[in-house]
Amino acid sequence: MVTLKDLEVSALGTRVPLQDVLSQLRFNSDGLIPAIAQEHDSGAVLMLAWMDHHAIQRTLDEGQVVYYSRSRQEYWRKGETSGHFQELVSMHFDCDGDTVLLKVRQTGAACHTNRPTCFYLTVSGDVIHVD
Amino acid sequence: MVTLKDLEVSALGTRVPLQDVLSQLRFNSDGLIPAIAQEHDSGAVLMLAWMDHHAIQRTLDEGQVVYYSRSRQEYWRKGETSGHFQELVSMHFDCDGDTVLLKVRQTGAACHTNRPTCFYLTVSGDVIHVD
Repeated sequence: MVTLKDLEVSALGTRVPLQDVLSQLRFNSDGLIPAIAQEHDSGAVLMLAWMDHHAIQRTLDEGQVVYYSRSRQEYWRKGETSGHFQELVSMHFDCDGDTVLLKVRQTGAACHTNRPTCFYLTVSGDVIHVD
Repeated sequence: MVTLKDLEVSALGTRVPLQDVLSQLRFNSDGLIPAIAQEHDSGAVLMLAWMDHHAIQRTLDEGQVVYYSRSRQEYWRKGETSGHFQELVSMHFDCDGDTVLLKVRQTGAACHTNRPTCFYLTVSGDVIHVD
């Protein structure tokens, strides 16, 4: 099987079976991996949440992003209560297989505060301002 | 002190002392918080690494991104061996204070493989291709 280490020096366009890469992802001791959601067209980083292997597979199968909630200890299809779904546009993994990047088409606000993104606290000198 | 919960419903432009927010960040059991690096102009998500409180403060003080390496258990100024520094453009925190977003001006490749970003493994049906 081609390893992630092999892929570090593979040519552009190299193709390997998805399951070979999924089996090499580095989940933490809780079986989770951080997933960054990015708006596919604007590039805005919307949020970071967590996935396990099953959440990744469900997201790929269903085309809608499913996370694993650490606080509630359950799967959580983004938008299932708020209506603010994330349609999956593309999924990417990083060089060492310990982070997922989700490019999504966000319906409504990504943040539970109803703001467009969760990253609305911005450092400005010795203060934080709310964007 | 104004809490992150208070800030969830604060008006745009609300300002609070930086240290009040830093003291409420939610570090994991190793004292770390995930930090997403994003190219400030293109919006490309470059990498995810980890910071502790000191790495956040050093990054703000020095204007160059400093992470904490989990594998080497030491501070790591991005670029100190590769020359591929990350100049901090802006720093942001999310609604619940458990993720940092760094907008940066990246010198050279962000990835140790010399690729522009670490997220070069893209799902395409049942294969992964190298971008």
